[in-house]
Amino acid sequence: MAITVVGSVAYDTIETPAGKRERCLGGAATYFSLSASFFTDVRVIAVVGEDFGKRQEAVFQARNIDTRGIEHTAGRSFFWEGSYLDNLNEAKTHSTELNVFAAFNPKIPDAYRDSEFLFLANIDPVLQRRVSLGLPDVKLIAGDTMNYWIKDHRAALLEVLKGLDILLINDTETKMLAGNNNLVQAARAVMAMGPKALVVKHGEYGATLFYGATPKGKSAGSAFRAPAMPLEEVVDPTGAGDSFAGGFFGYLASQPEQSPAAFRRAMFYGSVMGSFACERFGTERIQKLTRPEIDERFNLFRELTHLA
Amino acid sequence: MAITVVGSVAYDTIETPAGKRERCLGGAATYFSLSASFFTDVRVIAVVGEDFGKRQEAVFQARNIDTRGIEHTAGRSFFWEGSYLDNLNEAKTHSTELNVFAAFNPKIPDAYRDSEFLFLANIDPVLQRRVSLGLPDVKLIAGDTMNYWIKDHRAALLEVLKGLDILLINDTETKMLAGNNNLVQAARAVMAMGPKALVVKHGEYGATLFYGATPKGKSAGSAFRAPAMPLEEVVDPTGAGDSFAGGFFGYLASQPEQSPAAFRRAMFYGSVMGSFACERFGTERIQKLTRPEIDERFNLFRELTHLA
Repeated sequence: MAITVVGSVAYDTIETPAGKRERCLGGAATYFSLSASFFTDVRVIAVVGEDFGKRQEAVFQARNIDTRGIEHTAGRSFFWEGSYLDNLNEAKTHSTELNVFAAFNPKIPDAYRDSEFLFLANIDPVLQRRVSLGLPDVKLIAGDTMNYWIKDHRAALLEVLKGLDILLINDTETKMLAGNNNLVQAARAVMAMGPKALVVKHGEYGATLFYGATPKGKSAGSAFRAPAMPLEEVVDPTGAGDSFAGGFFGYLASQPEQSPAAFRRAMFYGSVMGSFACERFGTERIQKLTRPEIDERFNLFRELTHLA
Repeated sequence: MAITVVGSVAYDTIETPAGKRERCLGGAATYFSLSASFFTDVRVIAVVGEDFGKRQEAVFQARNIDTRGIEHTAGRSFFWEGSYLDNLNEAKTHSTELNVFAAFNPKIPDAYRDSEFLFLANIDPVLQRRVSLGLPDVKLIAGDTMNYWIKDHRAALLEVLKGLDILLINDTETKMLAGNNNLVQAARAVMAMGPKALVVKHGEYGATLFYGATPKGKSAGSAFRAPAMPLEEVVDPTGAGDSFAGGFFGYLASQPEQSPAAFRRAMFYGSVMGSFACERFGTERIQKLTRPEIDERFNLFRELTHLA
């Protein structure tokens, strides 16, 4: 079943110990939709500038992603420049140019209105909420956010959280949002804000899914932990979290039922897609992936974590 | 089959956000042997001072641990004082008094000579090697070390590593020992120093076992990742690593064959024992454990990580 995703389509200049790339195609909605497209139909809502042309469009087309919701306006696309020279787990931002994104007012194409799944990538929570209200009939809403919105746009973010089924954020964001340094306690506090399930991403250590009620004192009663792949070389971690979200939500949307067992497999597919994203710069690896490669790695992850 | 462990038996004064305890019974050999005693026979080699009396002895007796190799000498036992007020993942050391440990010369009781398993807890590698040479017929040797020995006693440590079957250290130690910041590459480099298997402990994120040859480019071909328990409250992380080692090696020693499947289950038992250790100050929780509680948590860990 189709997912509509709203978020950024952007250009990134990235430097890592493996090298430097100028103006790769990037943005949360790009990584998410490419990743999710291996599992289900994906429709994008975003805004780009005049620097987004046929070559970039072709990247989405190649994966059958619906781009009718990508608005083309005068000016330049969102641009980010960052490096991971000291620490592959944390980007150092050198430059952020909002450009056409500064005036982004998401428009939902009519053709998207029967989407049953909605992903709110990391953008201004006011816009997340607007899209969410514009698609009142979706079956499941997942979303992402970041420290900036948690710190400085809390009220708007809390409105979004109330309507979320699944929130995907990292350890630091979870603890910051809850104001609590214990992950289990913080997860419970965040889920009390609205999300019925919480996926906490641990970077190279995988991710933990908290779901259902977690009775106080019962630590792991409703938790599931997916590993990350121990990688020989991390070329570029940019977009790993969005690729995780795409694999996770894309797989969920592809299933007839969003059962606990489906959530578990979705966590694995999320980790699988996140691990592929790190293997090359930008979206290079995800663009060239095949479904057999994905399933092969899924089996490796099972091998990596299962007793027998 | 019996394990002989050599290491510290000590007193710890510990402060964490949950409170403070003065002079708890501690030391790597204490945590290790209490933890391993739930799986197999354990024999300790250590040295204590006059402050180690009947009450401390009784802790070992209650778990049927052979203490004939604990030498009693004039003076005070090893003492450590530390706190985890800012960061539960890393102790801040306030004071270390070697006391009787400064002149420790491990003696192996004759009754220990038929031990088939040997654990070299984190002490001077010169002493680790001495005990190892004194028990030439053991079937499997595992060991631990720390940043201090890696940095300042490298030559002696490398001698120990040559003879090790299994090394258990954390991420930072692995990367420091290998001089390489990529975990997979660092693991391969460390295993080239001798250990046939390497257990890298990730604290709250679990642990990864690397075993067998890891062909270059094949990242996770021979790896297994065990989770840690998402804990509602970490009261005191002191000894979690040694308790992990006790559960891991104790379980391995209890098995008729140290097969890959046994190693996987051993990783789970290690994580289980490490998680219990954190629930109370010092060895309080491990002292009161029962085997059914251990197996219940083992099943929780399976539930936490297995797809179905």
